[in-house]
Amino acid sequence: MSSQIYDDYVMLFRKIADLKYASAVLQWDQETYLPINGNDHRGHQIATLTEMAHQLFIDEKTGSLLTCLSESNQLSPHQLKNVQLSLEDYNRNKKIPSDFVRTMTEATHQSFHAWIAARRQNDFCLFKAPLQKIIELKRQEADLLGYEHHPYDALMNDYDKGLNVSETDHLFESLKQSLKPMLDTIRQAAQPDNEFLHRSYPKEKQWQLGIDLLKSMEFDFNSGRQDISEHPFTTNFSSRDVRLTTRIDENDLANMVWSCIHEGGHGLYEQGLPDHEYGLPGGEYCSLSIHESQSRLWENCIGRGKSFWKHHYQKVQQFFPESLADVDLDQFYKGINKVQPSLIRTEADELTYHFHVIIRYELEKMLMEGTLNAKDIPAYWNEQYLKYLGTHVPDDLQGCLQDVHWSHGSFGYFATYSIGSLYAAQLWSHIKKEQPDLENKMSSGDTSPVLSWLKNKIYPFGKHLNSSELCKSATGSKLDSTYFIDYAQQKFSDIYGVIF
Amino acid sequence: MSSQIYDDYVMLFRKIADLKYASAVLQWDQETYLPINGNDHRGHQIATLTEMAHQLFIDEKTGSLLTCLSESNQLSPHQLKNVQLSLEDYNRNKKIPSDFVRTMTEATHQSFHAWIAARRQNDFCLFKAPLQKIIELKRQEADLLGYEHHPYDALMNDYDKGLNVSETDHLFESLKQSLKPMLDTIRQAAQPDNEFLHRSYPKEKQWQLGIDLLKSMEFDFNSGRQDISEHPFTTNFSSRDVRLTTRIDENDLANMVWSCIHEGGHGLYEQGLPDHEYGLPGGEYCSLSIHESQSRLWENCIGRGKSFWKHHYQKVQQFFPESLADVDLDQFYKGINKVQPSLIRTEADELTYHFHVIIRYELEKMLMEGTLNAKDIPAYWNEQYLKYLGTHVPDDLQGCLQDVHWSHGSFGYFATYSIGSLYAAQLWSHIKKEQPDLENKMSSGDTSPVLSWLKNKIYPFGKHLNSSELCKSATGSKLDSTYFIDYAQQKFSDIYGVIF
Repeated sequence: MSSQIYDDYVMLFRKIADLKYASAVLQWDQETYLPINGNDHRGHQIATLTEMAHQLFIDEKTGSLLTCLSESNQLSPHQLKNVQLSLEDYNRNKKIPSDFVRTMTEATHQSFHAWIAARRQNDFCLFKAPLQKIIELKRQEADLLGYEHHPYDALMNDYDKGLNVSETDHLFESLKQSLKPMLDTIRQAAQPDNEFLHRSYPKEKQWQLGIDLLKSMEFDFNSGRQDISEHPFTTNFSSRDVRLTTRIDENDLANMVWSCIHEGGHGLYEQGLPDHEYGLPGGEYCSLSIHESQSRLWENCIGRGKSFWKHHYQKVQQFFPESLADVDLDQFYKGINKVQPSLIRTEADELTYHFHVIIRYELEKMLMEGTLNAKDIPAYWNEQYLKYLGTHVPDDLQGCLQDVHWSHGSFGYFATYSIGSLYAAQLWSHIKKEQPDLENKMSSGDTSPVLSWLKNKIYPFGKHLNSSELCKSATGSKLDSTYFIDYAQQKFSDIYGVIF
Repeated sequence: MSSQIYDDYVMLFRKIADLKYASAVLQWDQETYLPINGNDHRGHQIATLTEMAHQLFIDEKTGSLLTCLSESNQLSPHQLKNVQLSLEDYNRNKKIPSDFVRTMTEATHQSFHAWIAARRQNDFCLFKAPLQKIIELKRQEADLLGYEHHPYDALMNDYDKGLNVSETDHLFESLKQSLKPMLDTIRQAAQPDNEFLHRSYPKEKQWQLGIDLLKSMEFDFNSGRQDISEHPFTTNFSSRDVRLTTRIDENDLANMVWSCIHEGGHGLYEQGLPDHEYGLPGGEYCSLSIHESQSRLWENCIGRGKSFWKHHYQKVQQFFPESLADVDLDQFYKGINKVQPSLIRTEADELTYHFHVIIRYELEKMLMEGTLNAKDIPAYWNEQYLKYLGTHVPDDLQGCLQDVHWSHGSFGYFATYSIGSLYAAQLWSHIKKEQPDLENKMSSGDTSPVLSWLKNKIYPFGKHLNSSELCKSATGSKLDSTYFIDYAQQKFSDIYGVIF
């Protein structure tokens, strides 16, 4: 009896997943191949799919089915966990009316295209009104979802269950405290040169290098692909169809290389999730913080590490002999790790990166409190960049127009980037400890021990463990920012020849 | 009151269109970019969308809404026509249960991939079982839809309302009668050489030539694009987002050029349909016969005409100087129009083409009657090619595996190719008569008078006129195959220096 109802549940949730993933295909297409005049209808098409998925999900029948199953004593613990998580999600979604979902989807469609247009014209004004609309909708959403302490808590919870302002304030305060003196010390040391990253790197060859790097990471091109988009991202339509995107700047090798490895880390996680749990919590990623731990682990701990490049740098030199013949491995390694306050988050070094995130986090909190509005963003943004990073923002393109997130309505997301980095450092410390021969293997191009560890400790759990539980299960303890500080101090004292 | 209900109708039908077009995006992606392991989930995703669109459409509420509106006297004639056509479609769809739709969608997904695999291995056996399943489902579908004389009538009706076996038998009989003596005469004349079409034509340059040709036809790349697929096709997700595909064989220039112009003709029609009627009959194409009249008009009447190449051939020579330096315009024109019984329908000349279609038409009739099954297809196919075209089919790839249609469940479709050609010749005759300067303009690369005529006489009517009505409205009389025979006799007597 329960087994039949469980099958009904699986069928219903697979159907909802079909609609959600179909919507994701339409969004992927929108950001890669959609002809410009197709935008308007596409917005409605995505809105229809999103609304129908939401309606199906919050239908009373779904609630009864889940409640009935959650009270059954005939399910396996694994099945029961799926049901409990779906019920939690149901109760949360039930608070959002379907017409609100449609309004939000259509508004984000408009704001995404306004963001593209604003970037093309390098003028925030074109983005201001649609963004303000999104901000107001997100405030309403926070009210609909409800919160105890801060409206922003309600939104952060969407990306990492249980994450809140109080805990994040605390983590970010300790990050600021540790990073500030490190940056002061580094500023006074001799600086590595990274001018070589801005020489000439032809598009076609960069593309091929990116594909080669993804292959060496064991990203499965039978279960995924890479395309070009305005802003790199990863999406998936099942764990057997994972789409990465990248962008290529012929005068900036770093832009492509580390966005490629970063998205590759996301992609490996999606490909590693249990495919037989398609549509169920057991087949979904844990949280965005853990997702980011995967991308940041590959991008930074591995992809900006010396062992990785001991193998791969030769290949890069072969791709671009004219630009890199005079740069040796040591120069390359130091150059790609140069610490330098900058304007663009996705191109920032591992240390100043966190200030980019903290600025966005603090700004979003104020937007959700209502103490800041869309029109105030450029001035506030520029002021904070001066305060935290000492950099003058010359225009909106290099300032508050750089990230796609707000245009998608993704408020509460940014903190997970830094928290993901902290998780990454903690995982990395354990991976290295448990695989003593790892550095040697990586020096010969073999990162498979890392992937094996992740396939064992991270990927199989889907959403069945939350971030904290997963961290504890994989490393024995909850998130501890000293792992990151230790990692950073060791790496950068070596590179800069300083003691922190 | 009626106006409010009409708005509800528009909103509902736009929602259904959103689901159908979303499904079309997933299918387009499946045939262009989908990684191989993504196939299974994609099949379910498409099935879910198709099923939901169908459920929404055949819902009792839809029926009441349409019935109520169809009895209203407050609608404009245009609005009433939309409602009447939707109601007709509703009554037809109502006969097909949703689970049948899902079964069919999943079966065609399987059979499409079986067809791809069978083509790769050049072995019909791999396609046999999934195809037999489709055949049985199509027989069931014909029974569900109902028919007076022949089960195949029920299926043909899907592609061209009112088209039936009796009328088609008659048309095809007269085609056979006229073409047979023409082919006999041609066989005895001196044959033009078209060996040059099989020289070396690099991929990249062919791609660029295809894009250039589409641009010269005024295909709007802001409202469409072209990609590569196994089998060329046109699909659209609104009239502002029309996707063409082509395939490129480096040793066969004709393959790309005329499939490109053919799909371009389809694409122009879709781009020309009234965009404000999105989701309503007024925004949909008339019938597949008329759709094919558009592609065949561009492919043959224009794209295999001398005036067209007077302008474009120079460009082709510039693209491929090594392969075409020794071929002059006259040789090119005669070569591309060489009449020669062959194996592949899409590469056939304008005359023998119809026998390819007639073979498929007769075969499908038998499949639907139950006098033939999937396992019998290769033998029957090969026998008919020998009988009608005198050609020996060496393998399935060049035989019964060449078309994608059956794998998609498209039975009843093929006849519209020939009927479309007949319509094309009739339209072409009137276009030339009404634009006396046309040949001159085309000789200087300007096909805009053709497009203007079509924008005036064909595109604006959507589905509001059926094929016959549209033909009559555009040319003053109903379909008359003598237009095609006259066109063919004039063209080929000139090329072959013979009198028919």
